[in-house]
Amino acid sequence: MRRIEDLVNIYLKDVSGNLNILGKGIKIAIILLAAKVISSLTNRIIDRALLNRKESNFFSVSKRAHTIGELLKKVVRYALYFIAVISILDIFNINTTSILATAGIGGLAIGFGAQSLVKDVITGFFIFIEDQYAVGDYIKLDSLEGTVEEMGLRVTKLRAFSGELHIIPNGKIQVVTNSTRGAMRALVVISAPYEEDADKVIDILEEVCQDIKSANDAVLEGPTVLGITDLAEDYISITIVAKTKPMSQWSVEREIRKKAKEAFNRENIEIPYRKVVIFGGNEDA
Amino acid sequence: MRRIEDLVNIYLKDVSGNLNILGKGIKIAIILLAAKVISSLTNRIIDRALLNRKESNFFSVSKRAHTIGELLKKVVRYALYFIAVISILDIFNINTTSILATAGIGGLAIGFGAQSLVKDVITGFFIFIEDQYAVGDYIKLDSLEGTVEEMGLRVTKLRAFSGELHIIPNGKIQVVTNSTRGAMRALVVISAPYEEDADKVIDILEEVCQDIKSANDAVLEGPTVLGITDLAEDYISITIVAKTKPMSQWSVEREIRKKAKEAFNRENIEIPYRKVVIFGGNEDA
Amino acid sequence: MRRIEDLVNIYLKDVSGNLNILGKGIKIAIILLAAKVISSLTNRIIDRALLNRKESNFFSVSKRAHTIGELLKKVVRYALYFIAVISILDIFNINTTSILATAGIGGLAIGFGAQSLVKDVITGFFIFIEDQYAVGDYIKLDSLEGTVEEMGLRVTKLRAFSGELHIIPNGKIQVVTNSTRGAMRALVVISAPYEEDADKVIDILEEVCQDIKSANDAVLEGPTVLGITDLAEDYISITIVAKTKPMSQWSVEREIRKKAKEAFNRENIEIPYRKVVIFGGNEDA
Amino acid sequence: MRRIEDLVNIYLKDVSGNLNILGKGIKIAIILLAAKVISSLTNRIIDRALLNRKESNFFSVSKRAHTIGELLKKVVRYALYFIAVISILDIFNINTTSILATAGIGGLAIGFGAQSLVKDVITGFFIFIEDQYAVGDYIKLDSLEGTVEEMGLRVTKLRAFSGELHIIPNGKIQVVTNSTRGAMRALVVISAPYEEDADKVIDILEEVCQDIKSANDAVLEGPTVLGITDLAEDYISITIVAKTKPMSQWSVEREIRKKAKEAFNRENIEIPYRKVVIFGGNEDA
Amino acid sequence: MRRIEDLVNIYLKDVSGNLNILGKGIKIAIILLAAKVISSLTNRIIDRALLNRKESNFFSVSKRAHTIGELLKKVVRYALYFIAVISILDIFNINTTSILATAGIGGLAIGFGAQSLVKDVITGFFIFIEDQYAVGDYIKLDSLEGTVEEMGLRVTKLRAFSGELHIIPNGKIQVVTNSTRGAMRALVVISAPYEEDADKVIDILEEVCQDIKSANDAVLEGPTVLGITDLAEDYISITIVAKTKPMSQWSVEREIRKKAKEAFNRENIEIPYRKVVIFGGNEDA
Amino acid sequence: MRRIEDLVNIYLKDVSGNLNILGKGIKIAIILLAAKVISSLTNRIIDRALLNRKESNFFSVSKRAHTIGELLKKVVRYALYFIAVISILDIFNINTTSILATAGIGGLAIGFGAQSLVKDVITGFFIFIEDQYAVGDYIKLDSLEGTVEEMGLRVTKLRAFSGELHIIPNGKIQVVTNSTRGAMRALVVISAPYEEDADKVIDILEEVCQDIKSANDAVLEGPTVLGITDLAEDYISITIVAKTKPMSQWSVEREIRKKAKEAFNRENIEIPYRKVVIFGGNEDA
Amino acid sequence: MRRIEDLVNIYLKDVSGNLNILGKGIKIAIILLAAKVISSLTNRIIDRALLNRKESNFFSVSKRAHTIGELLKKVVRYALYFIAVISILDIFNINTTSILATAGIGGLAIGFGAQSLVKDVITGFFIFIEDQYAVGDYIKLDSLEGTVEEMGLRVTKLRAFSGELHIIPNGKIQVVTNSTRGAMRALVVISAPYEEDADKVIDILEEVCQDIKSANDAVLEGPTVLGITDLAEDYISITIVAKTKPMSQWSVEREIRKKAKEAFNRENIEIPYRKVVIFGGNEDA
Repeated sequence: MRRIEDLVNIYLKDVSGNLNILGKGIKIAIILLAAKVISSLTNRIIDRALLNRKESNFFSVSKRAHTIGELLKKVVRYALYFIAVISILDIFNINTTSILATAGIGGLAIGFGAQSLVKDVITGFFIFIEDQYAVGDYIKLDSLEGTVEEMGLRVTKLRAFSGELHIIPNGKIQVVTNSTRGAMRALVVISAPYEEDADKVIDILEEVCQDIKSANDAVLEGPTVLGITDLAEDYISITIVAKTKPMSQWSVEREIRKKAKEAFNRENIEIPYRKVVIFGGNEDA
Repeated sequence: MRRIEDLVNIYLKDVSGNLNILGKGIKIAIILLAAKVISSLTNRIIDRALLNRKESNFFSVSKRAHTIGELLKKVVRYALYFIAVISILDIFNINTTSILATAGIGGLAIGFGAQSLVKDVITGFFIFIEDQYAVGDYIKLDSLEGTVEEMGLRVTKLRAFSGELHIIPNGKIQVVTNSTRGAMRALVVISAPYEEDADKVIDILEEVCQDIKSANDAVLEGPTVLGITDLAEDYISITIVAKTKPMSQWSVEREIRKKAKEAFNRENIEIPYRKVVIFGGNEDA
Repeated sequence: MRRIEDLVNIYLKDVSGNLNILGKGIKIAIILLAAKVISSLTNRIIDRALLNRKESNFFSVSKRAHTIGELLKKVVRYALYFIAVISILDIFNINTTSILATAGIGGLAIGFGAQSLVKDVITGFFIFIEDQYAVGDYIKLDSLEGTVEEMGLRVTKLRAFSGELHIIPNGKIQVVTNSTRGAMRALVVISAPYEEDADKVIDILEEVCQDIKSANDAVLEGPTVLGITDLAEDYISITIVAKTKPMSQWSVEREIRKKAKEAFNRENIEIPYRKVVIFGGNEDA
Repeated sequence: MRRIEDLVNIYLKDVSGNLNILGKGIKIAIILLAAKVISSLTNRIIDRALLNRKESNFFSVSKRAHTIGELLKKVVRYALYFIAVISILDIFNINTTSILATAGIGGLAIGFGAQSLVKDVITGFFIFIEDQYAVGDYIKLDSLEGTVEEMGLRVTKLRAFSGELHIIPNGKIQVVTNSTRGAMRALVVISAPYEEDADKVIDILEEVCQDIKSANDAVLEGPTVLGITDLAEDYISITIVAKTKPMSQWSVEREIRKKAKEAFNRENIEIPYRKVVIFGGNEDA
Repeated sequence: MRRIEDLVNIYLKDVSGNLNILGKGIKIAIILLAAKVISSLTNRIIDRALLNRKESNFFSVSKRAHTIGELLKKVVRYALYFIAVISILDIFNINTTSILATAGIGGLAIGFGAQSLVKDVITGFFIFIEDQYAVGDYIKLDSLEGTVEEMGLRVTKLRAFSGELHIIPNGKIQVVTNSTRGAMRALVVISAPYEEDADKVIDILEEVCQDIKSANDAVLEGPTVLGITDLAEDYISITIVAKTKPMSQWSVEREIRKKAKEAFNRENIEIPYRKVVIFGGNEDA
Repeated sequence: MRRIEDLVNIYLKDVSGNLNILGKGIKIAIILLAAKVISSLTNRIIDRALLNRKESNFFSVSKRAHTIGELLKKVVRYALYFIAVISILDIFNINTTSILATAGIGGLAIGFGAQSLVKDVITGFFIFIEDQYAVGDYIKLDSLEGTVEEMGLRVTKLRAFSGELHIIPNGKIQVVTNSTRGAMRALVVISAPYEEDADKVIDILEEVCQDIKSANDAVLEGPTVLGITDLAEDYISITIVAKTKPMSQWSVEREIRKKAKEAFNRENIEIPYRKVVIFGGNEDA
Repeated sequence: MRRIEDLVNIYLKDVSGNLNILGKGIKIAIILLAAKVISSLTNRIIDRALLNRKESNFFSVSKRAHTIGELLKKVVRYALYFIAVISILDIFNINTTSILATAGIGGLAIGFGAQSLVKDVITGFFIFIEDQYAVGDYIKLDSLEGTVEEMGLRVTKLRAFSGELHIIPNGKIQVVTNSTRGAMRALVVISAPYEEDADKVIDILEEVCQDIKSANDAVLEGPTVLGITDLAEDYISITIVAKTKPMSQWSVEREIRKKAKEAFNRENIEIPYRKVVIFGGNEDA
């Protein structure tokens, strides 16, 4: 042990104890080697992280995960180059403050720009591990809604009912509304004129509900007539609700609407058209 | 005591008082050991913190608390590795400023991205210790409302009346409106034509109120007729309010509406349809 | 004096004037003791600050003030631990820059997250010392209104008229509108048809005002008829205002409305229904 | 002079020129004394600043200025304590970097929270020295309006016409609209049917204007008929404007409205009711 | 030269080359003197800058420029005091890091608060040198409009048509819309019924335009009939535009409206009232 | 090796081991050379990066990529000049802290300003590698929609249907809605009166659907009648949907509308005009 | 070479190797000279940059570019003064940390305020080199539109159709919509009653289109009848589009509207007035 030290002192240092040229050369070689080793190490870590996830079906499009991986590797590689260069300059006693300052301002500018990229990936990661939605779910994100077609590392793709494809950066996703978790509710508001007997109208609608309950498989609970939910200007509103299988709520609503209209026609319940009382303005005529 | 010191000076330091290679090796070993010890210590603290809370039923889904715990442990572990590496490089007199600067910019970028994660957890923590809502409460958060289905470390899940599941990051929660703390108020606005005697209409409605008070268990106070709350274009508005058990306000409102409509029919109170006075435009005809 | 110094130099320092192991041990002991002393000191300050306020009825729910106090104490304790550890490492000449840098980034992340917590408490403190509102006041905060049920260190709780409980972080409170400081104003707008004599209508309403002034205790000033405040399409609007005791403005308004309607009925002032002039479109018929 | 120096060197320094224990003690005493002196100095400055202003009637409620002053003094006192402690630790060669770093993060957190407080006071100060409004003025701030009841160091209080008290942090005040600086303008829009002769209508309204000009003291200039300012669907709009004393504009407007209505009744100008041309839909009947 | 140096070395420095007490005293005197000199220098610069501008009529109210100047001088004076104190403490080898750190946090807090003040002044400066508007111009700023009554260093004052005085911090001014730079455009939309011949209506309006062109001095170009600019439900819209002197556009519009109405009356162009086709609902009657 | 060192020591250093004037000159020469080399190196990297992309057709307008490239090169060149100057000043022991501080504030100001430029380029880069849209696609970005005409390094150009050209900085692009990826959906809502038999109406519309399916090549799936999707005040709504080739959805909708109208005419389905029930106001007449 | 060094050592340095008074004087002279040289250098660079651009017609108003140039020169000059002063103080071993700290806070405050100025200039620069619009183009910026009258270094001036001059800081410009790049589209929606035969109506409109195509030079393509684009309550909507020369789209639209109206009159296509079905409310009469 002591001998190595002596050798170092004799061959690699000058009289004042600083490294001589040979010593500096060896130090540079070590720095470059370390940079190389760390670079290939981080490459492997990045690959494993992204491939692992891919196997568990997280990022459905392997090409894209690959792209992000390559980008990450490049960023790490250039950062290591930069550190190595600064360390070598340091060996030759060159003041690197000005380089660090200049690079720092540049780095901050790029860092701020890349900030939303980092946020996209972190949010995407939490959406995945918290299982907020999966491919095939019907979800609402702010004012957009549709079926999830792809969950990416950086963006989510929704196929809207109109056929349009919404591409949303994950970082913009805040409140997620998922319509495929548990039973949905069909809700239909039926209007009837004030002149009709409320009890009779409710009875007719309850019969309609019985009909649908027995006939429709998508209905899980109800339908039930809630009662009079609004006293509007020209009509009273009666609300019917039912619990249905996910994505069947709209067809159940359409069925309730059709059956209720037919029952009202059959039972001669009047249509609650707008009603106006007219007075003759005598004094002017 | 003095002897330990002497031993240190003789075996671990060179003539100029710096550590020799053996001394450096021992120092590295101590650093690595310390990193290991601190890592397992923080792991235990994290486990205890999250498990304790779990026992007191805070985070209903243990799997998720686990996930966050694992994440936290990893972050701490890598931070310790980083500190250890820098300390070791320091022992060999390698200038670590450039590494710290590069890592600092990277750390800031990630820190900014993770900022909202920290905010989610802190807000969630305060919602819990201040008992703002609990699983099963019916709450409103901004424009969303529903029954709380899960209070997580990072997100709250609301089941809307429509059956949809809203997943809200806790950090987005500002004003909480809880409808399950104390009595709720049922409020129904009834319209009557200007031509009717206001006193008579109010009397009828007060009878309706008496009826409901005696019959309905969900009613805690009232219902009471407040009086004429609006002189609209075609009708006067009379408002009835009642205090009810939480979540029963809507059914009480529906009952008041139904009873009031029946009473008006019975007592021949006219329906306040839109009224128009018509003049013949003679000069043009 | 000089003797203490000599003793220190002999027993606690080595030849080059640095502390020897014994000296280092004593220094560590002092640091730990200081941390302990300061910790219990700040604990006592926090307790006194929060208890004092509690006695003067600031924070109505002592349990909560307690929770915040405990939190504050923990934060201070861990900060002291951290400082002590760094100081001790320093004694052994271990470079602590990397630890400080890593902790700094972590601290900033947590600091940013905790920022809104600090703002909540500061705003709450000013609301209290400026006496902007007190428990029992009826206030409006942005779009929310209700009776103050609890003024907390971090949140304010409002009981809305609907019975819902709004929980508002103090930091979100900007403009406070207090309806319980001084007399409120009842304001009713009455419509009359263009065909009526404006003077007659105003006379009738002024009689109504006299009636109410003499009968109603809640009225402090007025009611007065302001005059014609709008020439609308189908009617003129006449405005009546009165100063009332706080929270009585709505009942006074209801009384004015009822009395005005009765007076108009009695005096045969026509109801200002929508008016339409009809021309026969001859050329087409 | 030279003698003092010699004495210092002999009694307060040790051989290597550092302060000995006595020297350190004296230095500590000086630091503590300086802190004390500066503290009472700043206290006096704060008192004078706030009292001076109070005499010139700036901050109407002396109690509140007092509160802010006490707060300011406390902040200064604790800052001085902190500086003194750090300086003393420095004398004993204790590394204070970690304390400064920890305190820095805490200070920043509090600083960010207090930021809006500073902004409130600065804005309030400028509102005062620029004389944007004074107690008793009727002003509009964004969507709020009312009479200024109190101009505070941190908040402005407005008494709305409804009697409500708006409490507005000065920092939220951006555009100030003052209705008490110079003459206000009364503006009334009168509708007349298309069938009437526009010149006749304008003549009638000009007579009304003459009437009001001679009778009403609050009118400073006008009223004048501007002309036809809108060709609406059922009527033409004629606008009358007048300059009035501040706060009288509304009563002048009410007077113009009343006089115009009476003149139109007198001169048989028709009321411009909605007009509809009706065709019989023959083919369907 | 060399002699001065020798004198310095002998009388102002002690043996180890540091300043002795006399030397320190002289250094302090120099620092204080420098602070004094710089202070009166900057005072003169500030005075000249603000007075110069005042002469060229920039800041119309000299009293206010004075106020800002005094404020600026005070800020500079206290900054110099602070620097002098720190420099003096430095001479006595007192560690000033903690003072700088504490003052830095305070300075940042005040700096953030004063930020909008700086922005106000810079924006005001650019509005002036770019001559965006001058006193007397009629301008729109966001939702506010009026005649510029005062252009200040920090605020702009607009007198609205309603007589209200808007006080706007310059920093809030973004888009400026100036209505006094070049010709304005009068624009009137006239409605005619579908049944009329479009060519005839346009001919009548073109005659009206000829009339106004010859009679009105404020009209610079036109008026011209653009053609049919809308096919609405009950009428066609024909648009007339003219270029006028600034601030005369409204009176020209009123004149066009009046003349067009008279021409339509004269030529028996029908008023385009709402039109409705009515079918008898036979099956229900 | 050892000899080089000796030569360096003898000819380039003075007695105290610092560089002599010759040594300094050589060091300066090396710094300038290095700056030159690095500058041309980065120039080549920038050229290659931008040209490569251009070959793969990324940035359609080569002139623009060129402009950005030149700008980037200039920025790098001036940064290198700055670093070189600071390094040279350092050799002459001139304190460069004040220069770095001044340049740092300037650099930050420019950096903040350039921040959105960086964000534009990064977002543009991700839009490209994720293939969110390509030239020729019809997309929606927030409230803008049109055909992509150019994808630039910094901006995207959309040609709207109105012919207007929208130029959008890439950094403002968040959610992308692409209407050219996969089948689009045509959706038409048809109204029918309540009086008609719903089954009959649906049958007629299903025949229309059959017609279109067989005749129109652009239709990929459907059209299908969904059922009654709304019970409005005067009519029931029946919705028809079809899957079509991208960009054909509007023409298919127009065809469905036309065919449905013709079928309703043919089958005498009444047009669901507004319906009103009229009562004579007897008591007033 | 060696001789210069010796001379320096003998005449400019004292025994301990520091500069003597003469050496300091020379160093100060060099610093001042360098500041002077750099100042005139940057002045020339600024002049050239702004004049070059002016020649290529970038900044249309030379007076303004001049103003900005002068400002820039002043900023650089004062920065150089500051650096020189600090460097000179440094020579006399005066600690400049406190000056740098104070100036730094001031500089940051001014820097933040000037931030939007920097952004204005950078955005303006990119608008120019990307040729987003030129003087004379008709563009839309957010909610403002008009003809570009001036493209400045900091602001863009738009002349609105109303004659008003909008002055917009370039930094506020995000999406630019240019209506002068390529053909614009005229779009007119024509309504026809449900009772008419859709084919006949479309035929009539197609004839109108043929007419216009042959007569109007501004039309580049079309006009074409798209088909039935809406089934509204009272009418069907038929849309006509045409491609026109820029700025002619509105006159083409007016022509289409006029021709379509005339054709409908000629061919007796009914005007699609509002249609109502009336039922007698028998039970009440």
